[in-house]
Amino acid sequence: MSEPIIDLRSDTVTRPTPAMLEAMFRAPVGDDVYEEDPTVRELEATAAAQFGLEAGLFCPSGTMTNQIAIKAQTEPLAEVICEQTAHVYLWEVGGIAFHSGASTALLPGDRGRISAAQVEAAIRPVHNVHYPDTRLVCLENTSNRGGGSCYSLESIQQIAEVTRRHSLSLHLDGARVYNALVATGQSAQEYGEYFDSISVCLSKGLGAPVGSVLLGSKALIQKSKRIRKVMGGGMRQAGYIAAAGLYALQNNVARLADDHRRAQQLSTVLQNQPYVAEVLPVETNLVIFRLANEMPPKAFLEHLEEQGIRASSFGPQMIRFVTHLDIDDAMLTRVEAALASVPVAAVSA
Amino acid sequence: MSEPIIDLRSDTVTRPTPAMLEAMFRAPVGDDVYEEDPTVRELEATAAAQFGLEAGLFCPSGTMTNQIAIKAQTEPLAEVICEQTAHVYLWEVGGIAFHSGASTALLPGDRGRISAAQVEAAIRPVHNVHYPDTRLVCLENTSNRGGGSCYSLESIQQIAEVTRRHSLSLHLDGARVYNALVATGQSAQEYGEYFDSISVCLSKGLGAPVGSVLLGSKALIQKSKRIRKVMGGGMRQAGYIAAAGLYALQNNVARLADDHRRAQQLSTVLQNQPYVAEVLPVETNLVIFRLANEMPPKAFLEHLEEQGIRASSFGPQMIRFVTHLDIDDAMLTRVEAALASVPVAAVSA
Amino acid sequence: MSEPIIDLRSDTVTRPTPAMLEAMFRAPVGDDVYEEDPTVRELEATAAAQFGLEAGLFCPSGTMTNQIAIKAQTEPLAEVICEQTAHVYLWEVGGIAFHSGASTALLPGDRGRISAAQVEAAIRPVHNVHYPDTRLVCLENTSNRGGGSCYSLESIQQIAEVTRRHSLSLHLDGARVYNALVATGQSAQEYGEYFDSISVCLSKGLGAPVGSVLLGSKALIQKSKRIRKVMGGGMRQAGYIAAAGLYALQNNVARLADDHRRAQQLSTVLQNQPYVAEVLPVETNLVIFRLANEMPPKAFLEHLEEQGIRASSFGPQMIRFVTHLDIDDAMLTRVEAALASVPVAAVSA
Amino acid sequence: MSEPIIDLRSDTVTRPTPAMLEAMFRAPVGDDVYEEDPTVRELEATAAAQFGLEAGLFCPSGTMTNQIAIKAQTEPLAEVICEQTAHVYLWEVGGIAFHSGASTALLPGDRGRISAAQVEAAIRPVHNVHYPDTRLVCLENTSNRGGGSCYSLESIQQIAEVTRRHSLSLHLDGARVYNALVATGQSAQEYGEYFDSISVCLSKGLGAPVGSVLLGSKALIQKSKRIRKVMGGGMRQAGYIAAAGLYALQNNVARLADDHRRAQQLSTVLQNQPYVAEVLPVETNLVIFRLANEMPPKAFLEHLEEQGIRASSFGPQMIRFVTHLDIDDAMLTRVEAALASVPVAAVSA
Repeated sequence: MSEPIIDLRSDTVTRPTPAMLEAMFRAPVGDDVYEEDPTVRELEATAAAQFGLEAGLFCPSGTMTNQIAIKAQTEPLAEVICEQTAHVYLWEVGGIAFHSGASTALLPGDRGRISAAQVEAAIRPVHNVHYPDTRLVCLENTSNRGGGSCYSLESIQQIAEVTRRHSLSLHLDGARVYNALVATGQSAQEYGEYFDSISVCLSKGLGAPVGSVLLGSKALIQKSKRIRKVMGGGMRQAGYIAAAGLYALQNNVARLADDHRRAQQLSTVLQNQPYVAEVLPVETNLVIFRLANEMPPKAFLEHLEEQGIRASSFGPQMIRFVTHLDIDDAMLTRVEAALASVPVAAVSA
Repeated sequence: MSEPIIDLRSDTVTRPTPAMLEAMFRAPVGDDVYEEDPTVRELEATAAAQFGLEAGLFCPSGTMTNQIAIKAQTEPLAEVICEQTAHVYLWEVGGIAFHSGASTALLPGDRGRISAAQVEAAIRPVHNVHYPDTRLVCLENTSNRGGGSCYSLESIQQIAEVTRRHSLSLHLDGARVYNALVATGQSAQEYGEYFDSISVCLSKGLGAPVGSVLLGSKALIQKSKRIRKVMGGGMRQAGYIAAAGLYALQNNVARLADDHRRAQQLSTVLQNQPYVAEVLPVETNLVIFRLANEMPPKAFLEHLEEQGIRASSFGPQMIRFVTHLDIDDAMLTRVEAALASVPVAAVSA
Repeated sequence: MSEPIIDLRSDTVTRPTPAMLEAMFRAPVGDDVYEEDPTVRELEATAAAQFGLEAGLFCPSGTMTNQIAIKAQTEPLAEVICEQTAHVYLWEVGGIAFHSGASTALLPGDRGRISAAQVEAAIRPVHNVHYPDTRLVCLENTSNRGGGSCYSLESIQQIAEVTRRHSLSLHLDGARVYNALVATGQSAQEYGEYFDSISVCLSKGLGAPVGSVLLGSKALIQKSKRIRKVMGGGMRQAGYIAAAGLYALQNNVARLADDHRRAQQLSTVLQNQPYVAEVLPVETNLVIFRLANEMPPKAFLEHLEEQGIRASSFGPQMIRFVTHLDIDDAMLTRVEAALASVPVAAVSA
Repeated sequence: MSEPIIDLRSDTVTRPTPAMLEAMFRAPVGDDVYEEDPTVRELEATAAAQFGLEAGLFCPSGTMTNQIAIKAQTEPLAEVICEQTAHVYLWEVGGIAFHSGASTALLPGDRGRISAAQVEAAIRPVHNVHYPDTRLVCLENTSNRGGGSCYSLESIQQIAEVTRRHSLSLHLDGARVYNALVATGQSAQEYGEYFDSISVCLSKGLGAPVGSVLLGSKALIQKSKRIRKVMGGGMRQAGYIAAAGLYALQNNVARLADDHRRAQQLSTVLQNQPYVAEVLPVETNLVIFRLANEMPPKAFLEHLEEQGIRASSFGPQMIRFVTHLDIDDAMLTRVEAALASVPVAAVSA
């Protein structure tokens, strides 16, 4: 196949554009363990300023920023409240238990989103020694398992009201927070008012090759530096990769709207296919759908693969498509053709 | 009040009978850290033999035997499967995360009981580095939160078939396993065929003041001794308390049927009260019921307290009664009278 | 052999006297998880009052009280300073790392005792993320590996001055603290001024069968209760064993002087044996000595064993004798005879 | 000052040469979490092949590769044997306790190097539950605290003989292993015969900006991938930084001899200064020296700073110089002049 591969598995697969590469190549660097890398510092300051928080910490992955935030805001015997399919619980190798010795209270959400009432009901009685000590609530926005669903600002505000009243910390897994901001028109500044810590990912829709920034108060980031060190996230001339993230923050946010439009387009096409039983509501760049029982996911994915299209299995009969920087309209046309050509008859036999 | 307090809060509140006390203070003892306490060794051997397992380990509590079993059969980054209200998850201070660095996959059960199909569906894909490594399944029989419900032997057998096929370990939290055995007529010997480890509690329905025994293979118990040591469970002349457990195993098992009969009797009485919305099916010695919305739990418990009767709040509008060695038929008559005299009119006003 | 075994291996091997057993037998008890055991509460209050600290917590072992104290006064990424042969480091299964995720800074002491200057030099620079965070200093008094050596009050005071200046906590592993108090005439009350937490053992020289009490401020003990729970140290009618400890505190402290006198006597005899190369200075009830190179420890211990005497190997060529409640003067005479009869000629051949 | 800063603080401060930068930005990349980055795979394979080990794992730092190796080769309650100033113990934030729940047995070495006899004596008795379970020995070659000292192959061989006989794993912290290989003429292939795991650092003398590779058997690396994931070391298009490491392995190894020659030259100059009390033997690129008591380190370092020269404080009166890729002969001349001009008279007054 001479046409380029269309990789809908994840928005993590993007490669830097020439302009981003150029920014990386020209970045001034220093030894960031000595806190002397100017590009890293600029990235950290830029991201913090966007969200109205005091300080930032550049790390090699979103798993690291999430896990540091959890560690820094709990002690062993604590409990973390999150949705039952939250990335921090489901796809970070049980890191909450591993790094933080903390238990998890898992809430069933509405496409990955939990409510203030659920959070409040899940807080353990304080003076009963049988229970862990509820200390932290983690939200994920957009929710990956929830199909890119977004929290309303009102929901966030209500949850923050509960966490403050109970002296809990509130963390945002913002792996795709820019998608949420672009889709809803919410203000990043307001996020800084509600969350004690935010993990922002640079290597998903924003298109940077590596990295994530943890945002919070100066005290939190100071504490987090020691945790980053023990986790092995202290890097030397990290400015080369930080430069890509900085470029992305400056250039690749508004264009997420294109990814969202394309995801909507895919959703519409999928809803018209006889072998698709259900498409989750599409709010951002994730399209999760359920194949009809007659359609084996393996056969479906192989058919796409033969057309040079990759997608992810996402649970029994579930498939996920993700639009991103490396997916353009021409590719979308190819995907639509491939979806239309799935040999339903053969399959249902 | 000159009548004795009737303590229905838990079967842990029992005090030794004179005969049990006599057995305690005549017990031959030695330094058990040197493995020289004959009474401890007899207790461990007796319990192991009952369940057809190789060896036993005496510990100061059921929380310790459960947590040792979990630790000994997992490594950090493992995952433990259990019901979402399991004692090991809910009431052991998040010990699975704290001691074992292990994540928990929580299943919604049928009054605390999970099925083989649920277990199998919860096992994580082995070769995906995003997931913890499923290693252990914990059952609780009878289930505390489930209101003393019992597993059928067929269910246990099916779950054991799944755990073996996937090379997982299977642990039984047997805090009230003798209640289950007596209620169902199941054979303890068969349990030893299905479970890799069993935690047997002596200080609940059996009436001993302190202690629990962990049962398993010789290799497991050997490994568990080091874990008991680090947890601080290595005791010296522990024979005094082990003797009570030994006495209980020899004398207090069959009489659990009386507790079950009394629990049934309480259930019948409760079902006839206008202020009781629902009584969970009673299979053993736990009676969990929901007060009608008009009845404030606080007022209800205070009314009982005034009659010299204690019970436990067990969630919103939920109350738990537990029958045990220190509850006799005369006391039951007093409880029934107290239940009949709850001032409903005043309350619902 | 019709004569009783003379067990010099440890002061943990003692069995309760009839009077202590009587006290146990008659103790009023309750469910201590509900904080309703009057004997446990009296023991905790008595020990706390002796040392001028606010509160106490009864636990099944000294390992548990030590490890709880360490856990309660550190967070992961902390560092604990102690002597390089301290019991908390050497004989508690690496519990400092296991339970607390804390590193240890190990100091070479003078027979187990460290100095204020050593402690101060071992404190890590605060703002360097490469280092763990020094949080706690542990002393052991008397020192087991140091042969029962005692700290002077002046040393303790100087160390406390350092820990306070650097906002560190100071813990005393008081497994044999009553031996130190009796030998030096120090006041337990003064200890309470210097230490933030004290672990007092009841099952060593004091002669109780089981248990240890952790002492500290009310806030520390409150925090420690949750840690005790997760470690499995929450016991039910623990008053039976607590009663022995209470009896011991009231009756068995002053008599430790007899143990010390007997240890001195053994030291004198040992110094006169040709096969003994060195006897560590004896301050309390531990006698540690080094056999001459010509004397194989195995042969030496077997010779004693044949005379009905047990002792412990304590490192290459090192032997430990411990005097205690179950060693009387008649036994001492037998030990002296046995020591005099060691067949040196045969051995050195 | 118009002349460039001469940074002798560490070999971590180097910036890529134009040729290395060129290699970075031409690197083919992919999503390494999906194991699809060809440059990362080439780097891993290249490093593994050099040392005759099966597989490699690219990580963002040497702290991460060391800590993963320790975690993968221990379980909680294990003990790790290392020299008392080993980087894994001293400068990785107590990570051995934090990540692995493992205790450390610390040996006093000869300039950071330990012997087979020391290792063997430090192994804990296996069947005593009071001890942690010795599982792993870590060597550091060259030793940082030891002033760049190198192990002889014979020493390594003897230690490996001990670890195999006792079924322990042997890890090499090879932060500066290429310095050792170049200085001694040892063969990397032979290392692969003795060590179970090797951590190779790319961002020290080799001059790459970021990264380290863990080497070992396929099974070890497979297990390590899950640990890297939970630590947050799974990166996406990591090929850009891996390319620098690959370039370094291919181009910057032999030239380490220049760094060693320059370090020797500095040593000679230092030995002739009246304010230098002692210079540790120089074997590679580290020069550690002790200032005479009359010379305050602060004044000394400030004097250098004024000449545009940076160095590190390395303990009381101790200073460390490090030569590396960004230090050339012209700079050395400047350093020598600065050393000669230290105002001794003023200082000693």
